Amino acid sequence: MVRGRICRLLVRDVRFSTSLGGHGSDAMHTDPDYSAAYVVLETDAEDGLKGYGLTFTLGKGTEVVVCAVNALAHHVLNKDLRDIVGDFRGFYRQLTSDGQLRWIGPEKGVVHLATAALLNAVWDLWAKQEGKPLWKLLVDMDPRTLLSCIDFRYITDVLTEEEAYEILQKGQVGKKEREGQMLMHGYPAYTTSCAWLGYSDDTLKQLCTEALKDGWTRFKVKVGADLQDDIRRCRLIRNMIGPEKTLMMDANQRWDVPEAVEWISKLAEFKPLWIEEPTSPDDILGHAAISECHNRVIFKQLLQAKALQFLQIDSCRLGSVNENLSVLLMAKKFEIPVCPHAGGVGLCELVQHLIIFDFISISASLKNRMCEYVNHLHEHFRYPVVIKKASYMPPKDAGYSTEMKEESVKKHQYPHGEVWKKLLAAQEN
Amino acid sequence: MVRGRICRLLVRDVRFSTSLGGHGSDAMHTDPDYSAAYVVLETDAEDGLKGYGLTFTLGKGTEVVVCAVNALAHHVLNKDLRDIVGDFRGFYRQLTSDGQLRWIGPEKGVVHLATAALLNAVWDLWAKQEGKPLWKLLVDMDPRTLLSCIDFRYITDVLTEEEAYEILQKGQVGKKEREGQMLMHGYPAYTTSCAWLGYSDDTLKQLCTEALKDGWTRFKVKVGADLQDDIRRCRLIRNMIGPEKTLMMDANQRWDVPEAVEWISKLAEFKPLWIEEPTSPDDILGHAAISECHNRVIFKQLLQAKALQFLQIDSCRLGSVNENLSVLLMAKKFEIPVCPHAGGVGLCELVQHLIIFDFISISASLKNRMCEYVNHLHEHFRYPVVIKKASYMPPKDAGYSTEMKEESVKKHQYPHGEVWKKLLAAQEN
Repeated sequence: MVRGRICRLLVRDVRFSTSLGGHGSDAMHTDPDYSAAYVVLETDAEDGLKGYGLTFTLGKGTEVVVCAVNALAHHVLNKDLRDIVGDFRGFYRQLTSDGQLRWIGPEKGVVHLATAALLNAVWDLWAKQEGKPLWKLLVDMDPRTLLSCIDFRYITDVLTEEEAYEILQKGQVGKKEREGQMLMHGYPAYTTSCAWLGYSDDTLKQLCTEALKDGWTRFKVKVGADLQDDIRRCRLIRNMIGPEKTLMMDANQRWDVPEAVEWISKLAEFKPLWIEEPTSPDDILGHAAISECHNRVIFKQLLQAKALQFLQIDSCRLGSVNENLSVLLMAKKFEIPVCPHAGGVGLCELVQHLIIFDFISISASLKNRMCEYVNHLHEHFRYPVVIKKASYMPPKDAGYSTEMKEESVKKHQYPHGEVWKKLLAAQEN
Repeated sequence: MVRGRICRLLVRDVRFSTSLGGHGSDAMHTDPDYSAAYVVLETDAEDGLKGYGLTFTLGKGTEVVVCAVNALAHHVLNKDLRDIVGDFRGFYRQLTSDGQLRWIGPEKGVVHLATAALLNAVWDLWAKQEGKPLWKLLVDMDPRTLLSCIDFRYITDVLTEEEAYEILQKGQVGKKEREGQMLMHGYPAYTTSCAWLGYSDDTLKQLCTEALKDGWTRFKVKVGADLQDDIRRCRLIRNMIGPEKTLMMDANQRWDVPEAVEWISKLAEFKPLWIEEPTSPDDILGHAAISECHNRVIFKQLLQAKALQFLQIDSCRLGSVNENLSVLLMAKKFEIPVCPHAGGVGLCELVQHLIIFDFISISASLKNRMCEYVNHLHEHFRYPVVIKKASYMPPKDAGYSTEMKEESVKKHQYPHGEVWKKLLAAQEN
């Protein structure tokens, strides 16, 4: 089924000026412009299908990720797609272990984000050629093929390929029913859109009221900049949503370990289900509860050290579907609920595929599980998420939902797109 | 004393074609072209002094680091040097916690390497303006000023500023004598130049013979690609150097944890003092012995977890002198000997300053301590290292020894320098 030689790779720097409205603001990122390094792959196949991939960034530095995608491009160009997906583990290893490029990573930061953008495009292309949404491609794939996409390097001490195979085999039981359940009810979501740090109390109240009206029952609030401010905001939200609904908090790496312990004790009265990213993402031993990480080796240790109670995967920080698969399998082994990170640019569109697949084929449980949702920038995507009754409805279109509207891309390209030309000119005046 | 506004920042991509001779080759990096992103800072002061800084890379990807330096440049340009070093902690924080750029790090990979190159240039400039070699600038600096260069974020659970102050105060005792000792005898070094993985047995024998003749007593060998090959090479070296001399091994992140345990047990008969980088640099819990890391948060945990017996700092992977200071202080608290990583491009030139300062002002001990040495590319530096009787002699010229010869830079600039023009033309034919 898979066909064509990759004959063109285009990567673009696309930025949305979200900082103007305080959207996405938190204790460490006060003025993010939600952005993406956006990759398009073309093949010489006659079907004309293209693969779209992206990684999420915060504005400045997107050009650095674009530069890294170009540095990796020679691994992709002129490759036959059959050879790539036929030995996807080998291809993943080639990208992440390039003898010269791995020095400026390895498997972290800029080069890993670039790897994610590239591989996300490959997965999108593969799913499109198979005529399936990505989650369905994964659900229908036989376990051995699935495992052949995963690089087990550095994790075999907690998960061998045979153990992973057993987990997937067990996941076959009841798969059809769970797929039906997803198609009917979708995957439970929570919203982060009401309580960015830069929002005024009035905005917060208004958004909270609307969200409650729309049926949301789970809310996340940004904290960490000022304790008194946090207490006031958390009280306000807890009062509005009542004692039964779920509240999460996110400190975005703001605290040192002792500071985190003290701060969290002051916020405990508002009964958060979790406190996300209390400190440095590199600090495994310092974590009592933790969030997204940059690769499977970090996740492995967080699981080993019992340093997390919820595991938040990310579709664009980890090495695409390949590395996320290994983390989903480790989470299953340790029986830790996966609650994906989303929002940004396209993160909701992408990660819904992974978590729906996880439910159908791996975790088989919704207990304590939900997927983050943020309600902006979806209008720029060709296949935007569909939320019904605070749940993600499984995508029906073929691919990884990564494709953006060409018009949006053109307008928001940095620095020469129409939007940025105006903004930059205004800044100069 | 400090003066001038930074009015120009130039960054260049300089590459040496070391892969042609197998120099620098190891189990994970089979064909490195030792390279650097090389920064030059100019001020508007009348002294005409410039600050030179670099970070080490392996060829491909240097352009990505150059791009990241440019992304950080606005934090440096038009700043008064007095303001920078007067609040160096704040300046460090500004570079590493830029609200948009930290997303593509934070404090790791490409952006952290770029930060190191920039800050190394600032330190070089500062030391030059003071008319002192960097190690002497640090030795003479009062403890409070020294500490004001360190960002304690994320490490206060193991080292507070007050504890660090006490360590430095204690280090005052006997300082003069230790400085005299350094000036007389230098800092003990070990050599990695004899046994790169790509060298033939004959080359290895010849280089080992020469090194013994030159008075070297400590040797490092690269391992990890093939066990039988490793056994043969380690036996050869151990036989040549005899049972009393010191042998270290370096696997450069080649193994999974179980694989490392098995492999190491097979090499134990050759009595290595340490096995460096047996597995992923991110794997704290998996390490029995470990090596260089990407930031102070990782080092903190390695110390907490007692996962290392030797600590190898790096002048270009960590955030310059600032972050290395925090690691040296933590190592002192945990009484772990520091044996710096060197080699590459300029790493010997830079790190000698740090380890000589460490001996004089912090560790006050040479027990189990030595600094790596590799004997190539020094000819491109204006103030190359001086080795006497297998020891680093303290640099006497003002600055951080970071300045390269302009002629070398021009020739090796990628891709338009003379050397690369020829090589790339030859590749095309």
